[in-house]
Amino acid sequence: MIHILLIVSSLFTFSAHAAVQDFCVADLKGPDTPAGYTCKPAAKVTTADFVSSLGASGNTSNIIKAAVTPAFAEQFPGVNGLGISIARLDLAAGGVVPMHTHPGASELLLVTQGFITAGFVSSANKVYVKTLKKGDIMLFPQGLLHFQVNAGGFTSVAFASFSSATPGLQILDFALFANDLPSKLVEATTFLDDATVKKLKAVLGGTG
Amino acid sequence: MIHILLIVSSLFTFSAHAAVQDFCVADLKGPDTPAGYTCKPAAKVTTADFVSSLGASGNTSNIIKAAVTPAFAEQFPGVNGLGISIARLDLAAGGVVPMHTHPGASELLLVTQGFITAGFVSSANKVYVKTLKKGDIMLFPQGLLHFQVNAGGFTSVAFASFSSATPGLQILDFALFANDLPSKLVEATTFLDDATVKKLKAVLGGTG
Amino acid sequence: MIHILLIVSSLFTFSAHAAVQDFCVADLKGPDTPAGYTCKPAAKVTTADFVSSLGASGNTSNIIKAAVTPAFAEQFPGVNGLGISIARLDLAAGGVVPMHTHPGASELLLVTQGFITAGFVSSANKVYVKTLKKGDIMLFPQGLLHFQVNAGGFTSVAFASFSSATPGLQILDFALFANDLPSKLVEATTFLDDATVKKLKAVLGGTG
Amino acid sequence: MIHILLIVSSLFTFSAHAAVQDFCVADLKGPDTPAGYTCKPAAKVTTADFVSSLGASGNTSNIIKAAVTPAFAEQFPGVNGLGISIARLDLAAGGVVPMHTHPGASELLLVTQGFITAGFVSSANKVYVKTLKKGDIMLFPQGLLHFQVNAGGFTSVAFASFSSATPGLQILDFALFANDLPSKLVEATTFLDDATVKKLKAVLGGTG
Amino acid sequence: MIHILLIVSSLFTFSAHAAVQDFCVADLKGPDTPAGYTCKPAAKVTTADFVSSLGASGNTSNIIKAAVTPAFAEQFPGVNGLGISIARLDLAAGGVVPMHTHPGASELLLVTQGFITAGFVSSANKVYVKTLKKGDIMLFPQGLLHFQVNAGGFTSVAFASFSSATPGLQILDFALFANDLPSKLVEATTFLDDATVKKLKAVLGGTG
Amino acid sequence: MIHILLIVSSLFTFSAHAAVQDFCVADLKGPDTPAGYTCKPAAKVTTADFVSSLGASGNTSNIIKAAVTPAFAEQFPGVNGLGISIARLDLAAGGVVPMHTHPGASELLLVTQGFITAGFVSSANKVYVKTLKKGDIMLFPQGLLHFQVNAGGFTSVAFASFSSATPGLQILDFALFANDLPSKLVEATTFLDDATVKKLKAVLGGTG
Repeated sequence: MIHILLIVSSLFTFSAHAAVQDFCVADLKGPDTPAGYTCKPAAKVTTADFVSSLGASGNTSNIIKAAVTPAFAEQFPGVNGLGISIARLDLAAGGVVPMHTHPGASELLLVTQGFITAGFVSSANKVYVKTLKKGDIMLFPQGLLHFQVNAGGFTSVAFASFSSATPGLQILDFALFANDLPSKLVEATTFLDDATVKKLKAVLGGTG
Repeated sequence: MIHILLIVSSLFTFSAHAAVQDFCVADLKGPDTPAGYTCKPAAKVTTADFVSSLGASGNTSNIIKAAVTPAFAEQFPGVNGLGISIARLDLAAGGVVPMHTHPGASELLLVTQGFITAGFVSSANKVYVKTLKKGDIMLFPQGLLHFQVNAGGFTSVAFASFSSATPGLQILDFALFANDLPSKLVEATTFLDDATVKKLKAVLGGTG
Repeated sequence: MIHILLIVSSLFTFSAHAAVQDFCVADLKGPDTPAGYTCKPAAKVTTADFVSSLGASGNTSNIIKAAVTPAFAEQFPGVNGLGISIARLDLAAGGVVPMHTHPGASELLLVTQGFITAGFVSSANKVYVKTLKKGDIMLFPQGLLHFQVNAGGFTSVAFASFSSATPGLQILDFALFANDLPSKLVEATTFLDDATVKKLKAVLGGTG
Repeated sequence: MIHILLIVSSLFTFSAHAAVQDFCVADLKGPDTPAGYTCKPAAKVTTADFVSSLGASGNTSNIIKAAVTPAFAEQFPGVNGLGISIARLDLAAGGVVPMHTHPGASELLLVTQGFITAGFVSSANKVYVKTLKKGDIMLFPQGLLHFQVNAGGFTSVAFASFSSATPGLQILDFALFANDLPSKLVEATTFLDDATVKKLKAVLGGTG
Repeated sequence: MIHILLIVSSLFTFSAHAAVQDFCVADLKGPDTPAGYTCKPAAKVTTADFVSSLGASGNTSNIIKAAVTPAFAEQFPGVNGLGISIARLDLAAGGVVPMHTHPGASELLLVTQGFITAGFVSSANKVYVKTLKKGDIMLFPQGLLHFQVNAGGFTSVAFASFSSATPGLQILDFALFANDLPSKLVEATTFLDDATVKKLKAVLGGTG
Repeated sequence: MIHILLIVSSLFTFSAHAAVQDFCVADLKGPDTPAGYTCKPAAKVTTADFVSSLGASGNTSNIIKAAVTPAFAEQFPGVNGLGISIARLDLAAGGVVPMHTHPGASELLLVTQGFITAGFVSSANKVYVKTLKKGDIMLFPQGLLHFQVNAGGFTSVAFASFSSATPGLQILDFALFANDLPSKLVEATTFLDDATVKKLKAVLGGTG
């Protein structure tokens, strides 16, 4: 028996070292790298680093009547380096997740309550759109414009999984109208007229 | 206006070609490759290729009182090449997903009903275990042994997302006892005694 | 000497086999895969597979006064699997490459003639814009909205390199207005008014 | 000649900078990242960083009569970022490397002395087993359960190469019985009986 | 309207965090990793990090009558993590870029002035050579020996794009003759005679 | 018990499908792709696909007194897609593996008999050279020039593992002198004189 314990302890030493690369919980205070954040020391990692909750409804008391609650590397450091993350989507009646892209990940949407009309547009400008019900899943390939709209008269909920710990999120209207990109450039590159651009800039806080 | 239409059609030609790589819906009849299946021709891809349903409960009338319903590349060809997939998990009262690994992906579990005790063991043999309730999420890093056990007195449901279209699944007991791996080798490499191995082989259909 | 020739021929045999993976010129008639097209047999590959020309000006006699001439895997099969491709950009006076993304690649633009105002918007909605002159280079990270506008009174030319053989191209206005995505969905997800959407649909050939 | 030296020194400056990414010898005191350890400054790298020895026999005076001597990133920092590592395996008469997985790498075993019976089980629970002699090589795909057993009456030696600098190592019995995973959970998820679990926990130092 | 602004600010908070991984401008003073340099804090990144110039001619007053001006991660930190970089090549009359490899990237050459004879040799020792004119592009697959020679009677210019932010550069003659690799080893491994090796060592500054 | 068998058979069906991606034994008659060969159908894969032998000495009765016996994807289809391969190296007294590169992989050399002087040159032209004895291991990072020379008075043997199933092999002298690359181009790009180039071309079978 003592022999077993000896080999256990010696092999333990070895595998304890090797274990470092099982996971890489993000040290958000450390530097970021092209492959993700540096790792929290393995000795300080606990179960809490691998568990979180998306059980609470997001606050949909806003103009789009929608809330997105992400569990990306910034919010859920355990996903760092694992190539996966998730977000909760609450859509009140009339709620909309506006046209957007995730530059760094493909998305797989799972509807858990209500009805959602979702769609994406391919590089060939072909539209893939479908009204989903509870239990339905839909794919949105990486980097393509897509959207989700509540299709019921009451709150719908969905969970979006992503193929990266940092999928990114670029909301079209914010990219165009919520910053200081000069109106002339917006107009020249979108074919929208000056009145439309200025109206949306006013609403979304854009300048220039 | 006619000019715009001209440029549209010319650019269309270009982007239609470029679009081929937005996605690669698996042609399951074609050959497989190290990076996934060959692609269904883009012209034949429809919305149906990107939508599926995991809305139906799996059949848990079995000895483990559990059912796993995968939407991997084999069952949901749209995920091919996108680095993501999903599976539904139904656990009746007393249900268990036995100790297993996914050789090709990390997993992110989302509980949508009931209570589930889940855990994994790291290479350093450290245990990370937690009883999850509705809305909780938990990570299982790639290749590590993990399990899920119903922790309520009624059916629990969860959805597991994976960082690959083909995560694989190796169930420990099936790997050890449900094939023709000679009992002597099982015993020598697991420290289990002959009676235990033979009993489990009998139950799980193993020979040798 | 005879000995050397012997070793040469034996080693030749070996290295000829090993050479298959130096490159993988696309067989455009073969199936596509998530990692690119299947390879043209190495024995049929010639210098012509690795050389092409972007020396000819694109036709800018169109409404955006611009032309993009790609050398992606579809047009230049030699890039298949090499993680790089290129496109020529001609911008006549007043020419514009409208707001667009490349879902599958980062871009590095090199101006070789004239002046071009180029910019991109990050996920944080921050704008990075600059007027470039001959010899200047500018980066557009993967999947982010960006644009190029002629900033001189005469034709400007640039070459854009990409970090993939199939960078993809999604032109914003085409994605929104040049297909059958229902106007109501466009309006709901972009905050644009019905008149604007219908006007642009009319111009760009969209329906619904 | 002076001109040559000029160009040499100028090009040297350039290539000295570029050389940083030829390799990335691990700075084990620095932070870890999802892609491996941060790099030791190139100026401090010497030949010693790229050379090591596995010439010494491991100590097999233990219950499994086996020793594994790894040269992974922790023990041999030069492999960091290079996608390869190696380990020496000594199996005394009756020696066994128990059932285990490498979560992060495929393995290629080369027998250099004696006879070893080795095998792995696929996700489909199919067994691939073979008795290997000196000079034989065998593959163990990433993440799958496998084992090695001495098949001669004397010491056997093998070297295992891995497709990662940090392959990881999860030994089945240690994962199940050498930690504080509650016996009830072990039993529920492995179908082993309480007596078996408690016996192995006692031997391997497990609690709970 | 106030509601919109509320949602804007809340979503802004979210997307500002998510934006970190749009890009990873190299912090050259920070540690390097196998995936590239650590990132400059996003808040400090400006347009200047994404723009540079290769407009100036390199100094070709040297023995090879050539100059290479790289914009790799060391010189142009914005490319870090983006999988692309570029270099300017000036070849005066008679200019030569000697036989070399890029260990970490494939190259796509674009001739913008003059005539250049370029070629590479495959692992099968097959030669792919072509004289290129303005506007021509040519590929050099990763790691293979290649060269460029001015084929006109006046200065030629080209731009080489690479599939990595750190392609590396190993110039054959410098690797063989510009260091302390013992002449005997050079001779034994290249079949060159002692006089040739010593002459080139003298010219290129080699010792030993 | 019957219930267990039911769940076994149902789960078997599932995992049998999932197993396809455990490995991808090359179908050498099928097309190649940028990620490796297409896969042999899983049902036809046997243990023989994962086992081979490098036990036989290579024939060193040649001018370099050396033999390289590879087990790359072409010779050992089981490695396809697994990111690893191996080769045996026999060096008779006076044997030399001439200066060469592997464009597609890093190498880890293990000496199993005799003495071998091995070295590589970095992009910074720094030399890393060492005389290795039995049991020593040495790294050669991807794409860099390296060599091995017998350092004993008798046969030495080594095994080289690679971080790719298709590492490639470019032998410097063959690339320069064993093909139809015009002597003038060889001379211009290597600084070797005409007599040296023509002599080596004659020996190695080159033309032009």
